[in-house]
Amino acid sequence: MIVEMRTGASRQEIDAVVEKAKTLQLGVQMNLGTDKVVVALLGGHTGQLAPDLFAVLPGVERVTRIMKPYKLSSREVKRQDTIVNVGGVEIGGKRIVVMAGPCAVESEKQLMEAARIVKGAGATVLRGGAFKPRTSPFSFQGLEEVGLALLARVRQEFNMPVITEVVDPHEVAVVAKSADILQIGSRNMQNFTLLTSVGKSKWPAVLKRGFSCTITEWLTAADYILNEGNTELVLCERGIRTFEDTTRFSLDIGAIPVLKRASHLPVIVDPSHAAGHHDLVPALAKAAVAAGADGLLIEVHPNPAEALVDGLQSLNPAAFERLMAELRPIAESVGRSI
Amino acid sequence: MIVEMRTGASRQEIDAVVEKAKTLQLGVQMNLGTDKVVVALLGGHTGQLAPDLFAVLPGVERVTRIMKPYKLSSREVKRQDTIVNVGGVEIGGKRIVVMAGPCAVESEKQLMEAARIVKGAGATVLRGGAFKPRTSPFSFQGLEEVGLALLARVRQEFNMPVITEVVDPHEVAVVAKSADILQIGSRNMQNFTLLTSVGKSKWPAVLKRGFSCTITEWLTAADYILNEGNTELVLCERGIRTFEDTTRFSLDIGAIPVLKRASHLPVIVDPSHAAGHHDLVPALAKAAVAAGADGLLIEVHPNPAEALVDGLQSLNPAAFERLMAELRPIAESVGRSI
Amino acid sequence: MIVEMRTGASRQEIDAVVEKAKTLQLGVQMNLGTDKVVVALLGGHTGQLAPDLFAVLPGVERVTRIMKPYKLSSREVKRQDTIVNVGGVEIGGKRIVVMAGPCAVESEKQLMEAARIVKGAGATVLRGGAFKPRTSPFSFQGLEEVGLALLARVRQEFNMPVITEVVDPHEVAVVAKSADILQIGSRNMQNFTLLTSVGKSKWPAVLKRGFSCTITEWLTAADYILNEGNTELVLCERGIRTFEDTTRFSLDIGAIPVLKRASHLPVIVDPSHAAGHHDLVPALAKAAVAAGADGLLIEVHPNPAEALVDGLQSLNPAAFERLMAELRPIAESVGRSI
Amino acid sequence: MIVEMRTGASRQEIDAVVEKAKTLQLGVQMNLGTDKVVVALLGGHTGQLAPDLFAVLPGVERVTRIMKPYKLSSREVKRQDTIVNVGGVEIGGKRIVVMAGPCAVESEKQLMEAARIVKGAGATVLRGGAFKPRTSPFSFQGLEEVGLALLARVRQEFNMPVITEVVDPHEVAVVAKSADILQIGSRNMQNFTLLTSVGKSKWPAVLKRGFSCTITEWLTAADYILNEGNTELVLCERGIRTFEDTTRFSLDIGAIPVLKRASHLPVIVDPSHAAGHHDLVPALAKAAVAAGADGLLIEVHPNPAEALVDGLQSLNPAAFERLMAELRPIAESVGRSI
Repeated sequence: MIVEMRTGASRQEIDAVVEKAKTLQLGVQMNLGTDKVVVALLGGHTGQLAPDLFAVLPGVERVTRIMKPYKLSSREVKRQDTIVNVGGVEIGGKRIVVMAGPCAVESEKQLMEAARIVKGAGATVLRGGAFKPRTSPFSFQGLEEVGLALLARVRQEFNMPVITEVVDPHEVAVVAKSADILQIGSRNMQNFTLLTSVGKSKWPAVLKRGFSCTITEWLTAADYILNEGNTELVLCERGIRTFEDTTRFSLDIGAIPVLKRASHLPVIVDPSHAAGHHDLVPALAKAAVAAGADGLLIEVHPNPAEALVDGLQSLNPAAFERLMAELRPIAESVGRSI
Repeated sequence: MIVEMRTGASRQEIDAVVEKAKTLQLGVQMNLGTDKVVVALLGGHTGQLAPDLFAVLPGVERVTRIMKPYKLSSREVKRQDTIVNVGGVEIGGKRIVVMAGPCAVESEKQLMEAARIVKGAGATVLRGGAFKPRTSPFSFQGLEEVGLALLARVRQEFNMPVITEVVDPHEVAVVAKSADILQIGSRNMQNFTLLTSVGKSKWPAVLKRGFSCTITEWLTAADYILNEGNTELVLCERGIRTFEDTTRFSLDIGAIPVLKRASHLPVIVDPSHAAGHHDLVPALAKAAVAAGADGLLIEVHPNPAEALVDGLQSLNPAAFERLMAELRPIAESVGRSI
Repeated sequence: MIVEMRTGASRQEIDAVVEKAKTLQLGVQMNLGTDKVVVALLGGHTGQLAPDLFAVLPGVERVTRIMKPYKLSSREVKRQDTIVNVGGVEIGGKRIVVMAGPCAVESEKQLMEAARIVKGAGATVLRGGAFKPRTSPFSFQGLEEVGLALLARVRQEFNMPVITEVVDPHEVAVVAKSADILQIGSRNMQNFTLLTSVGKSKWPAVLKRGFSCTITEWLTAADYILNEGNTELVLCERGIRTFEDTTRFSLDIGAIPVLKRASHLPVIVDPSHAAGHHDLVPALAKAAVAAGADGLLIEVHPNPAEALVDGLQSLNPAAFERLMAELRPIAESVGRSI
Repeated sequence: MIVEMRTGASRQEIDAVVEKAKTLQLGVQMNLGTDKVVVALLGGHTGQLAPDLFAVLPGVERVTRIMKPYKLSSREVKRQDTIVNVGGVEIGGKRIVVMAGPCAVESEKQLMEAARIVKGAGATVLRGGAFKPRTSPFSFQGLEEVGLALLARVRQEFNMPVITEVVDPHEVAVVAKSADILQIGSRNMQNFTLLTSVGKSKWPAVLKRGFSCTITEWLTAADYILNEGNTELVLCERGIRTFEDTTRFSLDIGAIPVLKRASHLPVIVDPSHAAGHHDLVPALAKAAVAAGADGLLIEVHPNPAEALVDGLQSLNPAAFERLMAELRPIAESVGRSI
């Protein structure tokens, strides 16, 4: 942590910084610049200390944290790539994992049909939401428990792992019974009560990025799950909020190489929510694979025109098959398979 | 809802749009432009219909929603200003309400001292967090139940209503026992499970704006609470995330007049979280009052240098007193009092 | 400048950093952390050195600049407030300066009428654009030279200083003949050729903030003008681009106190472009004065319904008079006058 | 254009809208909703009309433009892909064009060396800046005329087309003598004086996206150049400004498919300025090709550690060669070549 004193800070003010550092068992090195005094604070846990502790002291101009605030998700703590195993499917290995299916579970027929289509085209995990966090209370909120039951049935019938969203910290155990991976949605990335609950469950989880959270905040949120001993964690980039409005969100493609350097966790991409329109999904999916993503989470609906949720961004069966065919050579060209 | 067909859309495609509109009992008016066909869909609930329902149809270029997606929070539904009564304090009336106190409850001594200071300076509601949603799992998470008990005690001793944050949908009732107003934090603005639970409690609540949510999304989230029959709701602007980094967030001062036009709910402002630095808080607080805010939520700590959370943005007692003195003439100049 | 080495950086890599620092005549202090080596570089001009010079060296993780990149606009270089004198009107003094008038000069009649209205209501500078940078080439681009001539005439008739925009670096001298203050528009804040040209002219200037530029970039752009010896410079906050769309831009009200700390230059606010709608202008104008702005730049049109440019955000005469009456007590309550 | 009247708008107010529409020779269709009257305005040029013309009328709630504001850059005006020919190199055809070289021309030796390296690795256009728009006036501003002369010499020696930036509207002709393509930088995307000047020159040009401009604004800016009769235009996505700070800008990968639908102009991508760090450039470059870009603009320096500008984001010769090798199979997998 670097504490920059104001020009003209008094000896007493500088001493107070040093004093506080010693109380916190930090090492101190003084840098007497021509214009300013800069105090470097050293110690293994400075990333987890609040800069405010020093910024609040009289005579301090600014405090800069050098160590990252996240720890357990950091590659400095674990150098090797984490591989998450979900019902026999490895996420983070050489094979790129495609998770596909409808945004919301609507009926047994719809889900069965969706499973048949996505499995046939090469997806290895089925997605489908039973609890749907919707912007408006007047929108369809999902089939809830009935949806979970359908997921459990289809999972068995197709022998295919299932991913579904969990929204209530008290229902993690219930959802885990019907799903192989728990999805934490974008709007819940900083719902720390939910993160802790999913962490305690030890169940494999996908943590979607908050649509306005930095990568640093994302990895720090991941620490909530890892800190409870749950290491079966996958990160999912799904687009960030920007001023651009021709896409629903802006896919942060740069997050992929940044995460690969900073963290050991697998990284997948949801091109559907970023795009907001099925026409744009294939380009984003291909870009994600080329940039090094370990998997994709794609919305596919047997008949998007009848979808209860997010029909516009869902691929129809033909479009999904075409995309899978296009993805294979790209995956190979980056040394992977699909 | 305005459905714009692609240039060259076929008769059949246009008919399908009309057909779907009729199924949903919407009125239809066709606008045959020189270049494009535009179909206007009419009906009282088009604001609550997903544009996707039509956007997904073949031949459709774009769908624009004319009606707002929010309803219960809208001034079109209720023309009169809502006034929320909290332990005898009116929010949304002529008098501007100042809620002040520490970010986190740290000890009985700290809370008592804070209550004494803020009440003495003219604040009418005491703030203090018992459950603290923190970015990192390694930070102080609040005193939790112990903090609630302290709030209850101080409330009684100072005969002063208390506001505190609730983070778990299953603990709303417990928190409500110790607090006169429930605060829903920025990161939980779209935690719909929590919103529903607070709505069901019928307890007065402050809904902070998600730091990257639009005003439209905010009012739609408010509808979750109002829809459960809880009309004791106050909105709190606390800064939005932008590219600017000299302040922690950017206070969206324009939100105040926008909300006053669009909604009947009272609007308060938290200048502390927006500023991120105590030096900047007074200017933001004064601006908020001049722009028409119904109240302020300000962090004050007996000794910011010892604060466990957010010390840098907390006013010390002298600064808070000075601010209160500066706010009074501004309040008067806009026809209010403090 | 703080150079953070990667964990495990070699002795040789650290030496290369020290070597380069010495070449640039910087002082060096080493901080041997438990996990990382951090090298502090000291010297009076580290703010103007590119961090890349060190970031590019092998073994370097990250470089943080402690000194600000701007210099001449900084309060560290000049502690006293700058007061800009424009035809007898002081900007930056105790009196808040209101500059008002139409977005574009449209005709002699319109401009005369506007001048009469705004002067009558208490504005002391007339605004009016002759060259209009428009988003689309198919929009009205201003009366250009004819507009300049009208401004010169009205300025004389009403004995009122005039502000108008300059867009071409080769026309600064021509525009300066008809105007008392040159306005550099938001889209030209980083048009460095124009900045240099305005700097060389020594003519009083208003530098509007680029709608997506940080305050640091803004002050660094101001240095281009100051560096040519032109110290008659005023900064104008006019809203930044964010995700919020109910206002045209988001007025960064926090920029006012931030600039007052960081810089000696006067700060004015344009509430009209930020709001985008006349209904919202008064609240923003009042907030700006309460937050400490030295002036306002407001669009007023004799008949907004007939305006060729930006009619929606223009106040009509009655609204402007009402606003001026409302601003006076607020100005007084912050120790100023209008 | 859709004009939405306020609830309860009077007959007279509605008539005024209709009247104004007729003055502008627009067709009118009335939609009498249950709650609101919505007036649709029809005509070929409604995209170029300012919504303000109607929004400013009494009783109008909101105006929505259906037609796009851009015209000449739109695929509705020209269905076929534009192919720009630059000294024998086609941009927008089957072959992906790689433009590479140093950010700034620093010396003959440096430029010769760079040309040799990038040509050897397969780049077909040499980039190099003679005029450098720099954030700070204290930074290296480029070799200017000397740099142009070096570009002209190297172009001849290597028989390789050259791209360089133009910043002054009055120097377009001079720069065009030494360059095969003129680059308009991000900060000048809405420097309309410069756009018009480049349009008049009829010289091939690359228009970089303003780092905070929407795609709609970008295509409307392109119209300035096209409108002067210059159809040799290429668009370059280079990252947008967001809240994320681990990359210098956020590459808007979605812009590629959006532009391919909306416009006939070729689209290239600059991964270097988006990334800000050489380590991240390859992933972004590969993503761009997979997403359908027609070319890349990459910074390569013979010795990045000695670069005067942007060394951190420059690839060294070995990294560039490796990247070119990695790009080839990706290009093939999307039916292109490099």
